[in-house]
Amino acid sequence: MTFVAAPARLSTSSATFEQDFAQRLHWSADTDAAIEQRVADILADVRQRGDAAVLDYTARFDGLQAATIAALELTQAELKVAYDSLPAVQRNALAAAAARVRQYHEAQKKANGESWSYRDADGTLLGQKVTPLDRVGIYVPGGKAAYPSSVLMNAIPAHVAGVGEIIMVVPTPKGEKNPLVLAAAYVAGVTRAFTIGGAQAVAALAYGTATVPKVDKITGPGNAYVASAKKHVFGLVGIDMIAGPSEILVLADGSTPPDWVAMDLFSQAEHDELAQSILLCPDAAYIDAVQAAIDRLLPEMPRAEIIAKSLTGRGALIHTRSMEEACEISNRIAPEHLEVSSNDPHRWEPLLKHAGAIFLGAYTSESLGDYCAGPNHVLPTSGTARFSSPLGVYDFQKRSSLIEVSAQGAQALGQIASVLAHGEGLQGHARAAEMRLQQEG
Amino acid sequence: MTFVAAPARLSTSSATFEQDFAQRLHWSADTDAAIEQRVADILADVRQRGDAAVLDYTARFDGLQAATIAALELTQAELKVAYDSLPAVQRNALAAAAARVRQYHEAQKKANGESWSYRDADGTLLGQKVTPLDRVGIYVPGGKAAYPSSVLMNAIPAHVAGVGEIIMVVPTPKGEKNPLVLAAAYVAGVTRAFTIGGAQAVAALAYGTATVPKVDKITGPGNAYVASAKKHVFGLVGIDMIAGPSEILVLADGSTPPDWVAMDLFSQAEHDELAQSILLCPDAAYIDAVQAAIDRLLPEMPRAEIIAKSLTGRGALIHTRSMEEACEISNRIAPEHLEVSSNDPHRWEPLLKHAGAIFLGAYTSESLGDYCAGPNHVLPTSGTARFSSPLGVYDFQKRSSLIEVSAQGAQALGQIASVLAHGEGLQGHARAAEMRLQQEG
Repeated sequence: MTFVAAPARLSTSSATFEQDFAQRLHWSADTDAAIEQRVADILADVRQRGDAAVLDYTARFDGLQAATIAALELTQAELKVAYDSLPAVQRNALAAAAARVRQYHEAQKKANGESWSYRDADGTLLGQKVTPLDRVGIYVPGGKAAYPSSVLMNAIPAHVAGVGEIIMVVPTPKGEKNPLVLAAAYVAGVTRAFTIGGAQAVAALAYGTATVPKVDKITGPGNAYVASAKKHVFGLVGIDMIAGPSEILVLADGSTPPDWVAMDLFSQAEHDELAQSILLCPDAAYIDAVQAAIDRLLPEMPRAEIIAKSLTGRGALIHTRSMEEACEISNRIAPEHLEVSSNDPHRWEPLLKHAGAIFLGAYTSESLGDYCAGPNHVLPTSGTARFSSPLGVYDFQKRSSLIEVSAQGAQALGQIASVLAHGEGLQGHARAAEMRLQQEG
Repeated sequence: MTFVAAPARLSTSSATFEQDFAQRLHWSADTDAAIEQRVADILADVRQRGDAAVLDYTARFDGLQAATIAALELTQAELKVAYDSLPAVQRNALAAAAARVRQYHEAQKKANGESWSYRDADGTLLGQKVTPLDRVGIYVPGGKAAYPSSVLMNAIPAHVAGVGEIIMVVPTPKGEKNPLVLAAAYVAGVTRAFTIGGAQAVAALAYGTATVPKVDKITGPGNAYVASAKKHVFGLVGIDMIAGPSEILVLADGSTPPDWVAMDLFSQAEHDELAQSILLCPDAAYIDAVQAAIDRLLPEMPRAEIIAKSLTGRGALIHTRSMEEACEISNRIAPEHLEVSSNDPHRWEPLLKHAGAIFLGAYTSESLGDYCAGPNHVLPTSGTARFSSPLGVYDFQKRSSLIEVSAQGAQALGQIASVLAHGEGLQGHARAAEMRLQQEG
């Protein structure tokens, strides 16, 4: 069977560019009202009936029968066996990836995740104490999209942050376990793991049941039910961003082999029909060369059908007036993955304001970042890189402000606070400050 | 009229402590379904009709008629006049508070908000670039709870982060403007301000209208409609935490004048009947002294009625076996404000894991922190300090991972990525990595 991958060809010089561009980019995060209601019912049921409800839904949705939730817990011994039983090449790759991801997140913690404080001239101490979360839940999808790399990317930053307990949930439809996922849990330092999934697993983590411990935050990707459940419990527990379809944007100056760029576009498109692959380039002949590479390489791809649908439905090859203009358009998109496929990437990097991850130079394929370069592959999608960040150690830490006002400091601050508190009509606040003034204290 | 403030007296030694304690702490963040529906309708209407819808709701809910939204914009000149017209003592207090808040947040940015990177032995670069958000919206409540200090606490960290445009919205019921709020906007560096509020203002900021620019994130406190609207638009834009009632927890070793502690409990209770003030102390006689101070000081308070209702309905004076046990209970509560009212506060601080802000020593009244010590007064409530942090510069920044794999680095990483990608059935990812291997490149 032959598939055709025909990404839209746009040009920023075209009169209809803005319209065509908006149409290509359109993706709605609006959720389905029926799913919302179904999820609300599941959440309420698990909150009420606990383990029994989780068992019922697991039997119904995953085709997995068990007498107790305890029977669905994976022991550490089972995780270790999964790791030890892997072919050496997979075991070593997993360990090497985990080591690099750990090293990167250690550097991240050191750079941005340490407590700090200073003292004023009057001895007043001000600062913030950074501490890990006590217990977090990690949702790992099961079935056809079971990604062991996601286990590493969620669990390792939590581990590096110093989280006390990392509870993993992973659905195992009909009881089928993915040994790479179990092995990844072992390598990444998951504390406990349960073979449950869906909204019922999110509910179990958020509310706690007799068997599943209540966590402080839930991270990790999932389907529409999982996303809806996470959004619903947000506030009671912390959550990471709700992920939309994955996206890649390649900024190319024409210096990278076209085959490499074509394959990078494929590597995004193969995830899912809704995934989005976009090329921005000021060189029309190069764009033609990339399209030719797409046509030539597509038949070799086992996932050609998904790639063709994704590229034709949501992909775009955009001819720009310049690399500068390409950078501007990239900022408007705020892509999840941004490849600067140039022999002078540091010239363009300062112009790029919004992106989940920036891959510099022809050798930095997105797939290296997805698995093992070190940075996290959980990234903001659908333009949310405008206001949010890759998953990191900071997502598993929180801060407490520290204030120690000296007796002397209380004199100056007390007068300011008193004036402002009276201005807001809060006399208790004012009196509390005034009591610390020396003539009163 | 005489009011009685009778906080619950609990003891950790009592057989019913756990039950009594749970009952006192209970507060549900569950939102009202009717409000949810009303808010969804307002959001949909503003999304559809833009300025016209915002004008309609502003007329209906705030009793404020205007021909255009442009007529509801406060000019910079008007903000400056408000500041210049304040009595000198208020103007100076506002400026002094702003300067201290700015200094603290500059230190915070320097400590935790800087870009970083490192290179591997093979020349591969890894790091994160930290950049400010382009445009944020700040919601400032109007009417009876109009707090100029909230303007400072939301706008200054955004300004320090380097946010390009700070858009303030503040409802002005019947057109009545609070000069301290306008002056605070001037001092804090607000870019544009509109006298609109409620769910309609949140919608205008999230979706953008012809007049109100679309923002990337919305922060600031509000009533149930505002909270529901923020939760609804979360994902399309960033939001800060949804705030519950304010809380203070005082850990006392008996060394602070009881009047000071009583007034600190009042300063929380006076906010709102649902506010929660809790004292934990191992000294029963000291608890009696604080209750006596409460009884003596209450009649002096202009907001005695609210204080009495709050303390009686939600307050507690808890006798503990030890300061260590008091610290444990504090960690279970994860309070918004935590005063360590001790002459040896640094002995207890390391035991305290979860709190929005920790106030050390008798001179550090919460009210100094609320207004002018420097740290932010927007803090996680209702136990969310278990997983979230004070508002800070980091809320107005986001991170992009930086990866530049060297030609040499691509050899080692490519092999790892290839194995893992094949393990996940993603052959495009594998091929993209393999193409960079030297024999192929």
